[in-house]
Amino acid sequence: MAETKYDVVGIGNAIVDVIARAEDDFLVTEDLVKGSMNLIDEVRADTLYEAMGAATEMSGGSGANTIAGLASFGGRGAFFGKIAEDGLGKVFGHDIRALGVHFETPALTAGPSTARCLVMVTPDGERTMNTFLGACQMLGPNDVDEEIVAQSSILYMEGYLWDPPQAKKAFLHAAKIAKKNGREVALTLSDSFCVDRYRAEFLDLIRSKTVTLLFGNESELHSLYETADTASAMEALEQDCPFAVVTRSEKGATVLKDGKRIDVPAAPVDTVVDLTGAGDLFAAGFLFGHARGMDPEVCAKLGALAAAEVISHIGARPQVSLKDLAAQHGFSV
Amino acid sequence: MAETKYDVVGIGNAIVDVIARAEDDFLVTEDLVKGSMNLIDEVRADTLYEAMGAATEMSGGSGANTIAGLASFGGRGAFFGKIAEDGLGKVFGHDIRALGVHFETPALTAGPSTARCLVMVTPDGERTMNTFLGACQMLGPNDVDEEIVAQSSILYMEGYLWDPPQAKKAFLHAAKIAKKNGREVALTLSDSFCVDRYRAEFLDLIRSKTVTLLFGNESELHSLYETADTASAMEALEQDCPFAVVTRSEKGATVLKDGKRIDVPAAPVDTVVDLTGAGDLFAAGFLFGHARGMDPEVCAKLGALAAAEVISHIGARPQVSLKDLAAQHGFSV
Repeated sequence: MAETKYDVVGIGNAIVDVIARAEDDFLVTEDLVKGSMNLIDEVRADTLYEAMGAATEMSGGSGANTIAGLASFGGRGAFFGKIAEDGLGKVFGHDIRALGVHFETPALTAGPSTARCLVMVTPDGERTMNTFLGACQMLGPNDVDEEIVAQSSILYMEGYLWDPPQAKKAFLHAAKIAKKNGREVALTLSDSFCVDRYRAEFLDLIRSKTVTLLFGNESELHSLYETADTASAMEALEQDCPFAVVTRSEKGATVLKDGKRIDVPAAPVDTVVDLTGAGDLFAAGFLFGHARGMDPEVCAKLGALAAAEVISHIGARPQVSLKDLAAQHGFSV
Repeated sequence: MAETKYDVVGIGNAIVDVIARAEDDFLVTEDLVKGSMNLIDEVRADTLYEAMGAATEMSGGSGANTIAGLASFGGRGAFFGKIAEDGLGKVFGHDIRALGVHFETPALTAGPSTARCLVMVTPDGERTMNTFLGACQMLGPNDVDEEIVAQSSILYMEGYLWDPPQAKKAFLHAAKIAKKNGREVALTLSDSFCVDRYRAEFLDLIRSKTVTLLFGNESELHSLYETADTASAMEALEQDCPFAVVTRSEKGATVLKDGKRIDVPAAPVDTVVDLTGAGDLFAAGFLFGHARGMDPEVCAKLGALAAAEVISHIGARPQVSLKDLAAQHGFSV
């Protein structure tokens, strides 16, 4: 196998988060299901923004958060995602490049504006997301830089990519190139409603071995296998996928690999402020470790550490160097 | 005196902060003086943004932060400040209105864009600010809604307003209306470099009793009276101004009122994360208490509480309800 230039190339929706605190009443008034991600149009985005509280804007997007976290560990990352040539697009591009991530997907010069996600954080730290996909809907196979995929140890993709119709084509195209070059292909299930929308397609990706490393939380697994029982969902997953990680919030994570199971506890957090990005940052730590050849238990511990950092403050990207944090916790990264 | 509709009307630069962590080396490379506010043009703003790290965007502006803090205490606030009809202008307007503040200054439809301040936060929590004033330069006397000034207990103004030439005219106009209606006029010195630029004018405002309540920190007072000695600066200030508050960082604050001095300690903070907004939020607590007729010691304690909250996280506006925080600390607000 040829040398790699990147540890992970991510492909995902390029989104700027608009984050505000909200009371539970607000979710009820606005008819929002707590903890879910809702797709909204631009008109609704404007009305909801009008109604929500004072906000903070920061780059987000599930896959992009993961690549940002990878970079914070000192990993070499690249990202494909579609922005428009507008203010938010400039913000997204600046923030990901400032971390040293390769990001050169051409920006849209006409058409929809850069995607934004209105995130309501309730007092319990839970987040409810409302995404206007905008320019993300225009990401297509031509945006996949084949050379970068060929040079990356892992291709990582978010399930949310199945929402914009061209984007899944981009992923399938990228997956083919990765396979041809002997690279690994990883997928996160994103959220249980997303799994509900694309269950058959996701199962097919896994069973056809297009995807050989899967990330999901318990509710996503429940949705994937249409069961309320985690044990049976995990058994089914072990049959379907040689390598998977199930994240279980404060209960930690379980790695399922070649018939073996490894449980890793959650890293301690003083106060959970905002759960946005917990799964994304778990994946960041895990993928960093895995790309560097660490064993799955260490990978999961790095993931747990990154997830704990991101839920201790507002926003879905780390506020400290994860490389330093890992070193403080005795990991040699 | 007629009933009031607002506790405080603020007049200041309407700015969106772009906040990033930076190492001390970065300040050296970019030739920035730690802790200062530098005025920059749009070209420099673009270059510096390019060079700085991944950032968070949130509404700022010294006077606007103070009015936001006042609103968080449950105070009735209004604000005059100039934005443009663009993305950042929308953010600024949304965030301040979402707090219940009256903000109806007409936005510019042509000309410079909404002001932004690139804030570098070093590991010691100190902030170094770089402001492109943009639309703020177009704030003028016509933007002063006379009825609102007449109906506000206190008119509050930031020293930074002396930078855009039309804005100081707006302030002087507003001050006249406030005086005519028997309202109080307050000024913050903003920063020592700002005082250095406008020393004679600030002293004239104070000595002519245009301003009868002054906020400043030690280095601003040193600059105002061209001395390195806080004791003699405070003596001079007592001669010039009947009511002043000197903020002294971790040493607390000293209220100088009619020849008497009241020392109030700083409120405890676990970790100083970002000093941006400390002075603004001190003023918020103090003005809220003062507008509600509390005695100066209590006003200063509310100020200290608000300042401690804002330096415990990234960004210059409170992340919790200051009304609730004050109640938790035994204040009846």
